[in-house]
Amino acid sequence: MGTYIVKAFGTEAPEAALKQMNIDRREVTEKDVEIDILYCGVCHSDLHTARNEWHGTLYPNVPGHEIVGRITKAGNGVTKFKAGDLAAVGCMVDSCRECEQCRKGSEQYCEKGNIQTYNGRDKHLNRQTFGGYSERVVVDEDFVLRVPENLELSAVAPLLCAGITTWSPLKHWNAGPGMKVGIVGIGGLGHMGVKLAKAMGAYVVVLTTSPSKADDAKRLGADEVILSTDKAQMKAAANTLHFIVDCVSAQHDVNAYLKLLKVDGTLALVGAPEHPLPVAPFSLIPARKNFAGSTIGSIAETQEMLDFCGKHNITADIELIRIQDINNAYDRLLKGDVKYRFVIDMSSLKN
Amino acid sequence: MGTYIVKAFGTEAPEAALKQMNIDRREVTEKDVEIDILYCGVCHSDLHTARNEWHGTLYPNVPGHEIVGRITKAGNGVTKFKAGDLAAVGCMVDSCRECEQCRKGSEQYCEKGNIQTYNGRDKHLNRQTFGGYSERVVVDEDFVLRVPENLELSAVAPLLCAGITTWSPLKHWNAGPGMKVGIVGIGGLGHMGVKLAKAMGAYVVVLTTSPSKADDAKRLGADEVILSTDKAQMKAAANTLHFIVDCVSAQHDVNAYLKLLKVDGTLALVGAPEHPLPVAPFSLIPARKNFAGSTIGSIAETQEMLDFCGKHNITADIELIRIQDINNAYDRLLKGDVKYRFVIDMSSLKN
Repeated sequence: MGTYIVKAFGTEAPEAALKQMNIDRREVTEKDVEIDILYCGVCHSDLHTARNEWHGTLYPNVPGHEIVGRITKAGNGVTKFKAGDLAAVGCMVDSCRECEQCRKGSEQYCEKGNIQTYNGRDKHLNRQTFGGYSERVVVDEDFVLRVPENLELSAVAPLLCAGITTWSPLKHWNAGPGMKVGIVGIGGLGHMGVKLAKAMGAYVVVLTTSPSKADDAKRLGADEVILSTDKAQMKAAANTLHFIVDCVSAQHDVNAYLKLLKVDGTLALVGAPEHPLPVAPFSLIPARKNFAGSTIGSIAETQEMLDFCGKHNITADIELIRIQDINNAYDRLLKGDVKYRFVIDMSSLKN
Repeated sequence: MGTYIVKAFGTEAPEAALKQMNIDRREVTEKDVEIDILYCGVCHSDLHTARNEWHGTLYPNVPGHEIVGRITKAGNGVTKFKAGDLAAVGCMVDSCRECEQCRKGSEQYCEKGNIQTYNGRDKHLNRQTFGGYSERVVVDEDFVLRVPENLELSAVAPLLCAGITTWSPLKHWNAGPGMKVGIVGIGGLGHMGVKLAKAMGAYVVVLTTSPSKADDAKRLGADEVILSTDKAQMKAAANTLHFIVDCVSAQHDVNAYLKLLKVDGTLALVGAPEHPLPVAPFSLIPARKNFAGSTIGSIAETQEMLDFCGKHNITADIELIRIQDINNAYDRLLKGDVKYRFVIDMSSLKN
């Protein structure tokens, strides 16, 4: 299969800083589009993978799965896109397409594992996939999203992971009018959860350990902010929430949040703490509560979310950086020093 | 309010053995029935409460919440029963009847807490409630169940707790034809779970740590038995079950069972281990799995379950004992030495 060289930023080893490198992209096949990447969001997963913190990273590694840009080429069989269209790619670029989950349009839960945008197994080139910290990407149109024209493009990028990761559980557990929805943790994911849940019509309760984030949570759309370190506030909120999206990826006590749920309520974990979380049986049994997890969303859900964001004028709160500053951005990410998502201006790689 | 004395078996302190004592019952009010107790099942909760292992036990304590007998008196306002009818009482004898859960017929999840059959707060006498280890009990007809005439009455008693505790989650999570349902732990609860899930039309997979229970599990109705200590068997069963009822009340690794669930599958805990159970985020997130809890069932569900058992000729596997042997039965219960439920022949108390 024909390939060509593009510039990228990636890493050669867990301890190595990210640096400029060349990678190959396949020539567009029948169903592929080539996208000129304009912006790429910086997700904590990028850092985890670059540093092999989840193990299994294949090097070189080129992270980036919050990709927006413009179509530059389309294969002969492509029907959804033409050159010049805005387009986006999220966390996956393909799946088996044959299993029960793929057949029903839940590619994110592909039974053979969806093919991740980076550090996945490229079907065509038989090597690891390379992500969006690069000039261009070639993806099957079935895994490429349309982007509303009315949104600030740089701030759309984080919708492709942070946005869909909170949208999917909110939709799955029916967030909407009449529902009290808790969002735990206001970071890249949580700030999108607040904006989306509010626009869906839910009453939004933010739970944060940082008094300093209370005002900002209200600006983002929260109807109420609870300081989770304040026992009196937490006690007053017991048994009041229908659903909680827990965006915290550090170790934390989920029992404290499960207490806030009403009968039959669900807490969906979308942050991914490294170690097991202790769950008390009596946090679940007496009121038939659910502790669940959720990951990204299907392609159809992602499109639905992007269209919804276009209609409601929702984007992420971002800080735009040059790709040459990515290592510094990772350091700041580890300190939680970003409101609320770094996005790389990919023109910095091209010039 | 008028009361009268009946004989009972109970305990005066956490360390004390159970012994015969006298307790008072209220005279039947407008909506009450008096039941002559013929059989009472022995639930592990009885032992936990008698010994104050869940804290909060008020003494004297008279356990017993798997009660079957015959109506001996009915108040003027009683419409469901008349003297001579078979009747049963389970884990609760009243609730607030005003909260959202009570109004929709989920009294077990009463927001003010349902009134437990023993060690609850008696609305009429303003003292703790006394359970079924006694000659007679007086209960509001709304919390009394009808009993199918065709079943062996002594073996019906355990349906009132062990039966409904497994029936309710099986119904709530839609167990039936086309579903693969796992039952973890074959004891008082688990053996009922197998019988009920099988009769509901599900494909039943028993998970046990005891090779010796494999044959018995098949006799109870299991389509398949997996030895949960056998890694190869567990691996082969990964991602195959739609739903699991986890009946184990000792500490155990739920992550091993969560692995067996398909996408969107739920594991409902009905056993109540004392300490928190560690749950790995990656046990839930990648396939949107749920770790839930469930407790008993509503009065309507309990009646539905009893009617179903009548139709399908389902009862518990029991060992009948005299009430004078209750302390020995508790010792054997702690060793798991019972197939699968002790039931007290209450004539032993009367003579």
